[in-house]
Amino acid sequence: MDINSNKLIEDAVNEFGRLPGIGKKTALRFVLYLLKQKPEDVEQFGSTFIRLRNGIKYCENCNNISEKELCEICSNHKRDSSVVCVVEDIRDVFAIENTNQYYGVYHVLGGIINPMDGVGPKDIKVDALVERVSKGEIKEIIMAISATMEGDTTIFYIFKRLKDFDIKFTTIARGVSVGDDLEYADEVTLGRSILHRIPYENSLVK
Amino acid sequence: MDINSNKLIEDAVNEFGRLPGIGKKTALRFVLYLLKQKPEDVEQFGSTFIRLRNGIKYCENCNNISEKELCEICSNHKRDSSVVCVVEDIRDVFAIENTNQYYGVYHVLGGIINPMDGVGPKDIKVDALVERVSKGEIKEIIMAISATMEGDTTIFYIFKRLKDFDIKFTTIARGVSVGDDLEYADEVTLGRSILHRIPYENSLVK
Repeated sequence: MDINSNKLIEDAVNEFGRLPGIGKKTALRFVLYLLKQKPEDVEQFGSTFIRLRNGIKYCENCNNISEKELCEICSNHKRDSSVVCVVEDIRDVFAIENTNQYYGVYHVLGGIINPMDGVGPKDIKVDALVERVSKGEIKEIIMAISATMEGDTTIFYIFKRLKDFDIKFTTIARGVSVGDDLEYADEVTLGRSILHRIPYENSLVK
Repeated sequence: MDINSNKLIEDAVNEFGRLPGIGKKTALRFVLYLLKQKPEDVEQFGSTFIRLRNGIKYCENCNNISEKELCEICSNHKRDSSVVCVVEDIRDVFAIENTNQYYGVYHVLGGIINPMDGVGPKDIKVDALVERVSKGEIKEIIMAISATMEGDTTIFYIFKRLKDFDIKFTTIARGVSVGDDLEYADEVTLGRSILHRIPYENSLVK
């Protein structure tokens, strides 16, 4: 007898095993956990994801998750719609919103260019971004993309697509994390933090 | 805007967050993964767990998962039903079955005594085990329970409950893992492996 001897268990283990970073052992642990719960709780567990997938909408403007056609950021008139922060996915929107330092709008790519995973420029929302910029009301594009090989490729690709428009094209600052010891920062980060040094007065948080 | 601004996302994150070892960040990663899948795949994902919980049965004899009243181990006449291996949950049944070294039957407690988590003797299948033993056909109980504080407590509790029956009460051998360097074994394990040394002839796998 093993996991595969029971079809219901096997199916459930396989479904959990599809989640990113979850192997067969962890999946089985989840399954055993569910088996110990009340049937109505498991009913709710399963149906929540079905409701999620069927109920979620994406903002027509920025591809952020939304409950209406426009998300609450795009439809907020207090936000500066001439500044657009380009991010990989909605997790980054949550992270930047939590800083309370940004008052522009977003553009959610829904991924980054990653040839190893078969993700090309057509698989992410670059065309939609170019179209937004071509309307002429955007003054600045801030690329808030991870500084990885794939991230840099994505930034460079978008830069090329947008280079003929009269806009500022910026990326978020790289540098030593606030509170981190200099000696533990990697050379590239430390190097960039010196290269992109700023006047002291500007470094004071207002 | 944060995770909580969208009810569907919030609900799904909370549901994943109930799984053992899954925090809010990982839960959100799972949710974003599901959002990228086809609706019919997510439908299948959610419904699998509902079918699992409603469809799974437990063996009336040993509390193992089962498709009928008796599990395939209890109903297999080639297994020696006079030897019962007591385990914490069905994962341990899978693990022991995979060794191909055991031909007795099982008793699945469904947990171990853990006062910190509020699990007492009444919350696990000890009474059912005592009842099985009291029928008089069981000759040996093998405790295959983790050597932790909670595991030892559980073994001792069951030992006390069964001490008046005329049965052999054994626990699995503790010792240095096959293939492990002696110098890396902890003192308790190494000490037990010397204390419980066996004749060389017996150590040869047949």
